[in-house]
Amino acid sequence: MKIHIIGLGLIGGSFALGLRKAFPDLEISGSDSKEEHLLKAKQLKLIDRPAGLEVVQEVDVVIIAVPVDVARKVAVEVLDKVGPNTLVFDAGSTKSGLCEAIASHPNRRNFLAAHPIAGTEFSGPEAAIDNLFLNKTNIICEVEKTAFKLQERALEIFQKLEMRIRYMDPKSHDRHIAYVSHLSHISSFMLGKTVLQKEQNEKDIFDLAGSGFASTVRLAKSSPAMWTPIFQQNKENILETLEEYISNLSKFKELLENDDFQEVFLDMERTNHIKTILNGIN
Amino acid sequence: MKIHIIGLGLIGGSFALGLRKAFPDLEISGSDSKEEHLLKAKQLKLIDRPAGLEVVQEVDVVIIAVPVDVARKVAVEVLDKVGPNTLVFDAGSTKSGLCEAIASHPNRRNFLAAHPIAGTEFSGPEAAIDNLFLNKTNIICEVEKTAFKLQERALEIFQKLEMRIRYMDPKSHDRHIAYVSHLSHISSFMLGKTVLQKEQNEKDIFDLAGSGFASTVRLAKSSPAMWTPIFQQNKENILETLEEYISNLSKFKELLENDDFQEVFLDMERTNHIKTILNGIN
Repeated sequence: MKIHIIGLGLIGGSFALGLRKAFPDLEISGSDSKEEHLLKAKQLKLIDRPAGLEVVQEVDVVIIAVPVDVARKVAVEVLDKVGPNTLVFDAGSTKSGLCEAIASHPNRRNFLAAHPIAGTEFSGPEAAIDNLFLNKTNIICEVEKTAFKLQERALEIFQKLEMRIRYMDPKSHDRHIAYVSHLSHISSFMLGKTVLQKEQNEKDIFDLAGSGFASTVRLAKSSPAMWTPIFQQNKENILETLEEYISNLSKFKELLENDDFQEVFLDMERTNHIKTILNGIN
Repeated sequence: MKIHIIGLGLIGGSFALGLRKAFPDLEISGSDSKEEHLLKAKQLKLIDRPAGLEVVQEVDVVIIAVPVDVARKVAVEVLDKVGPNTLVFDAGSTKSGLCEAIASHPNRRNFLAAHPIAGTEFSGPEAAIDNLFLNKTNIICEVEKTAFKLQERALEIFQKLEMRIRYMDPKSHDRHIAYVSHLSHISSFMLGKTVLQKEQNEKDIFDLAGSGFASTVRLAKSSPAMWTPIFQQNKENILETLEEYISNLSKFKELLENDDFQEVFLDMERTNHIKTILNGIN
């Protein structure tokens, strides 16, 4: 099988490593807008060789793993040139805009819109790990718009990587994921920002930070180049989640101001319910 | 050496396990307001035997590891009965109120105010782990108010557990820790609450949650019985941090509303600086 990966960062690189393990005879070509990523990807044996866009005429699978604003344009360019039996799938964190952008493309049936819920706070080819997708959820949108044979090929790939598949329409995807992923990133970035601001006046504040802080602020290490276009594309849903989050924080602040510590206790106790729900997520 | 531990949860239990490893000949007695914790602690060999408060007259060390509201009262009760050569230390997350409560106690010099920055989101004797304190920071307040010989004994204990010592006045402690610990807990609890509220209307939302969400919301599993009195005692500092956090979130929301994605990018990029600062914290 021949695979071409566009974007050789954490996600694209992890597909390369995972697929090489799953399909020993794989030939992988790749491209990246950053020359140093391309070199690094070759050096780390993520890809066998660099290749330009024309290669999508002859490979079996094209994986688009670039920031979501670039992905929209690249998806159209790839479909313009794609071979008749080539599967193209993406891995982006927003789905509505992408699905709209390719909705009436004559080669729409070559495309599968996917979102593997997998990642770390690191980025670039060095961040790639071969088991990133193991037991992770992969959300597939508008599966009915993909050619049967190519649906099958995609599922074979995702099953070999041992992913759990969930089917969903793009609008529900974007609304749900705003809560369980995009909001977490904002809450974490703003927590980091708040403490960094304080540190300008009070040195050594981080010397006191423990594992709880590190865990809560972990996502603030994420790549702004990846996340800015996600926030842009999913703006309406994210604004809704942010409003609810700020409102909950303001109500909690009021409880403290009013010395209503019984309600503070109950508010936290109800939220403890998240324990049972999160079992099984690492 | 004879040690008495008041409160046999995560912190008290982890002291028991860690100290047993460090001092093989230790005799450990303990007490807990919950009968089942006491039984469990005996069963797990955290303690050799239960004992009442009168034991503080004859042991070498008393460790107070109960919620911070109880700790204030218990500290006074222990100092009322303590033997002349007994070291008493606590492990609570707020220090000003406690230090005030015992400031004029005739046995103040038997007491050392400590805060090991260590813990997990779990609680109870079963949550105890023997290396909880390894390489963790331990903040000691008002060390000059503790008798020299007892300072020495405390340091020996903390060094055997391989903790890093930091000295600080109680007010600075409470202000700093509001940022790097207390605020993280609130941001996490409110994130959990926001997503749980959404789940009431939209099922399966958690099925899409990944490791990023799990990490950010981890602290929302923490014990309300432990955290409510912390928020109560450190209310003023926490209100300040909450105000700044809400203000940063509101500004970020405005940037989204105004489509100022360049500033969104820069805001996140500046906060990425937290990467270098957090190196070394697990």
